[in-house]
Amino acid sequence: MSNGLLEGKKGIVFGALNEQSIAWKVAERAVEEGAQIVLTNAPIAMRMGAIKELGEKLNAPIIPADATSEEDLDKLIDAAMEHFGGKFDFMLHSIGMSINVRKGRHYTDQNYDWTMKGLDVSGMSFHKCIQAAYKKEAITEWGSILGLTYIAAQRVFPDYNDMADNKSFLESIARSFGYHYGIKNKVRINTISQSPTVTTAGSGVKGFDQFITYSEKMSPLGNASALDCANYCITMFSDLTKYVTMQNLFHDGGFSNTGVTQEVIEKFGE
Amino acid sequence: MSNGLLEGKKGIVFGALNEQSIAWKVAERAVEEGAQIVLTNAPIAMRMGAIKELGEKLNAPIIPADATSEEDLDKLIDAAMEHFGGKFDFMLHSIGMSINVRKGRHYTDQNYDWTMKGLDVSGMSFHKCIQAAYKKEAITEWGSILGLTYIAAQRVFPDYNDMADNKSFLESIARSFGYHYGIKNKVRINTISQSPTVTTAGSGVKGFDQFITYSEKMSPLGNASALDCANYCITMFSDLTKYVTMQNLFHDGGFSNTGVTQEVIEKFGE
Amino acid sequence: MSNGLLEGKKGIVFGALNEQSIAWKVAERAVEEGAQIVLTNAPIAMRMGAIKELGEKLNAPIIPADATSEEDLDKLIDAAMEHFGGKFDFMLHSIGMSINVRKGRHYTDQNYDWTMKGLDVSGMSFHKCIQAAYKKEAITEWGSILGLTYIAAQRVFPDYNDMADNKSFLESIARSFGYHYGIKNKVRINTISQSPTVTTAGSGVKGFDQFITYSEKMSPLGNASALDCANYCITMFSDLTKYVTMQNLFHDGGFSNTGVTQEVIEKFGE
Amino acid sequence: MSNGLLEGKKGIVFGALNEQSIAWKVAERAVEEGAQIVLTNAPIAMRMGAIKELGEKLNAPIIPADATSEEDLDKLIDAAMEHFGGKFDFMLHSIGMSINVRKGRHYTDQNYDWTMKGLDVSGMSFHKCIQAAYKKEAITEWGSILGLTYIAAQRVFPDYNDMADNKSFLESIARSFGYHYGIKNKVRINTISQSPTVTTAGSGVKGFDQFITYSEKMSPLGNASALDCANYCITMFSDLTKYVTMQNLFHDGGFSNTGVTQEVIEKFGE
Repeated sequence: MSNGLLEGKKGIVFGALNEQSIAWKVAERAVEEGAQIVLTNAPIAMRMGAIKELGEKLNAPIIPADATSEEDLDKLIDAAMEHFGGKFDFMLHSIGMSINVRKGRHYTDQNYDWTMKGLDVSGMSFHKCIQAAYKKEAITEWGSILGLTYIAAQRVFPDYNDMADNKSFLESIARSFGYHYGIKNKVRINTISQSPTVTTAGSGVKGFDQFITYSEKMSPLGNASALDCANYCITMFSDLTKYVTMQNLFHDGGFSNTGVTQEVIEKFGE
Repeated sequence: MSNGLLEGKKGIVFGALNEQSIAWKVAERAVEEGAQIVLTNAPIAMRMGAIKELGEKLNAPIIPADATSEEDLDKLIDAAMEHFGGKFDFMLHSIGMSINVRKGRHYTDQNYDWTMKGLDVSGMSFHKCIQAAYKKEAITEWGSILGLTYIAAQRVFPDYNDMADNKSFLESIARSFGYHYGIKNKVRINTISQSPTVTTAGSGVKGFDQFITYSEKMSPLGNASALDCANYCITMFSDLTKYVTMQNLFHDGGFSNTGVTQEVIEKFGE
Repeated sequence: MSNGLLEGKKGIVFGALNEQSIAWKVAERAVEEGAQIVLTNAPIAMRMGAIKELGEKLNAPIIPADATSEEDLDKLIDAAMEHFGGKFDFMLHSIGMSINVRKGRHYTDQNYDWTMKGLDVSGMSFHKCIQAAYKKEAITEWGSILGLTYIAAQRVFPDYNDMADNKSFLESIARSFGYHYGIKNKVRINTISQSPTVTTAGSGVKGFDQFITYSEKMSPLGNASALDCANYCITMFSDLTKYVTMQNLFHDGGFSNTGVTQEVIEKFGE
Repeated sequence: MSNGLLEGKKGIVFGALNEQSIAWKVAERAVEEGAQIVLTNAPIAMRMGAIKELGEKLNAPIIPADATSEEDLDKLIDAAMEHFGGKFDFMLHSIGMSINVRKGRHYTDQNYDWTMKGLDVSGMSFHKCIQAAYKKEAITEWGSILGLTYIAAQRVFPDYNDMADNKSFLESIARSFGYHYGIKNKVRINTISQSPTVTTAGSGVKGFDQFITYSEKMSPLGNASALDCANYCITMFSDLTKYVTMQNLFHDGGFSNTGVTQEVIEKFGE
């Protein structure tokens, strides 16, 4: 299936780890729709991933970069511009990690070194990626930058822990930088707030299966898949959405505006 | 318990039906805090109510008025101003009713005459009450007007039916009229979005007990009672909140910003 | 320009008045993208419009219908299904009108008969259109319904008058009906909150030119045009956005999340 | 003026710098309303401040603490509990600082060491203060914690720079920790989003006077003063608001829900 929506466009995709990843699906779909892409990931993550196969399949170079390192990001932008022969049109940021979650530290018992490190990886890295591109004037007019987020930025899901605060920070960066980049170069920046998705990252979280089920039953259309999310990203990279910027866009089957469903309420007796 | 927060203030309370009503508690608490009040209700509702006892206890006149009738509201404002010897300081609007709900018509099978009538009673009446006071310059500077609402205005609770849309309309009126009344006379207008409350109105709704339980378990502090809501209203009528206007204020034990609680998620298997 | 995004899809477009109309642009773009459409408008509006030319150009039948009349809507749905040979896939609701605005009645001096009539045309008609389709099971699975709205539903723009409350009501209907239609048939319902647009409707409003200028200067990307809005609608009718439902989507060049721009602040002295 | 609203209550006030500070006004008003308080501030800030006079006037000990230091906060909580003879009831967090702002670094040219330091001071410190109290079970049931914030967390005000993202992070902490502290001890946590206020902190910011004027003209009731903000804080510390938690509460004369005022629009020609 292709509509050639990204014909002639070029972009960088951060965070494709394996074929469950949303970023992986975005990479595949972007190329199907006519884009050229560059893949990137943290050196440490890449050792685990199958990203090389993806790169070969999509004819896309893989340029390792730690998204918390300004130096790595500068090199990445330079290498991408060299590869593309000039400016590019879109970027996807799909990066997140909480050490407190991984190590089982409760939200009320944070190790702040870990909190800060998680914030750097999950939130500040979005600013760093954008600033690196902004300074090098790497993105074309009406270019489009996306970050992935989750509704925990607005409402509490206790197991999501400090990632909630990180995602709030990320969404704020989309607004703040979206203002400046919009005024300067008409580049737009948005976040997509996606249903919980079974990925390598998600599947390790305690109680994640229960949570997926709850979310499914609380969403009038059910949870959105990674592929559907990729399709939505394609529209946001296309020229059909040029005036959408500084927004947080829910792609969640209606979860965000559902207070309760009949199926959920019935769990609470008769 | 009294702190004299409303010493010297005067106000009109709409919608006290019986001692379960939030408006009833507001009336009692306002008088405890030093206010003089006028009670009003629809003639048809008053026949069922115990409002006369309340009026005697609080030394408050009862002036029947259909809140959808401009004529009734004009008379009410005139009578209240005569009783108070001039302008007054606050109004509580606690009025709502859906014929579609009462008659069991599903949201997807509305009888529009009923929908319109419910909207007039539940939403437009708020505009009518305020406009009547506004035209007669009945409210003092820094006066405070409150409407009661529910989070169904933001998120879907299927049994709430067309009342959701009515409440959205009501909350919009608070913003729109709050702007104009603020600029003209520094009168402020807000809505309080209260936990589901066991009142005469609520208790008839299908599945209401389940719903109260769900809401209780989804609220970190539990559901807020009618008395607690009345206490909150008192602060909003007082001079301590003079710069709060055009807001929708959640008084719900944290429900509105809770995505899920541990207790709820556990209903979804292991 | 066409990507065949709506190849094989069929839909009804309400509210194309003349070539400035957003609905007009949506009709043109939908056909360009491969859709078949039916055009409809109120009989009274059609006499003024150039809709016949559009119909001929797009090979689309024109079926007059007053969107406040259940009878007219039933006939419209029947006629559209007959024309299409079965179910259809999308609907655009672009209808709004305030008699209070037209007649110069201030928000604080409403004629409530007019307010109710404007609400019926601008807000309730959205419910009526959807309910008519819902009852006849006229829309395919994953079908998409859009209404057009304005940010006055969230924040006060004084000249927008009672249309603000009407738009809040409309947006609430998108959520409420989106829940039920999503669960029943996976049909999704959203509203698009568009920049102020120079159309026949808009251009009559007092101070509209000032307002367009203000909005332009407060939007990092500038005001979105009717054509850009149509492009966005196309993405929302396509299969690439299947899990977006019950949302209010800002298409406004960033206005909604901009507190102030440098250009605006400079009007306030040095 | 006193209503004895905080009779018998005890609390810690962070961030009273001089008599323009909101925290200073909160300290004064809390004591007027019957509370006992402990004052605290960063050692470096205290040297500049007149806090000693305030301490003497209010009969309140001053305990220096760097709110980014877990060790300092532990000592502060211990010292406060010793002073009060047990648990206390409320905390005010009024702390914020951006090195990027101070040093004139644009949002698109951040020095990330400074960004991280500003985030630690302005955002993470809120978590640290709460976690220190939580671990020592220092706060009574139905206790109340407040942080001060600004609407830049929702909408872009370009000169506010990276403080916008810091405030988003702070508001998220209020929700996240409000959930956990609510469930464990019924302690509630909210943020108050205040009008721009002429304080020592604010007055150094470029273009701040223009901004105050703009905000004044965009607020139907005008900008809220520091004293009015303190009054609002008092209500939030009192028992009259027990079920308000995890909220961001706008105290801004209506600014947040005003799209434009007549006075502002008139700057944009005729």
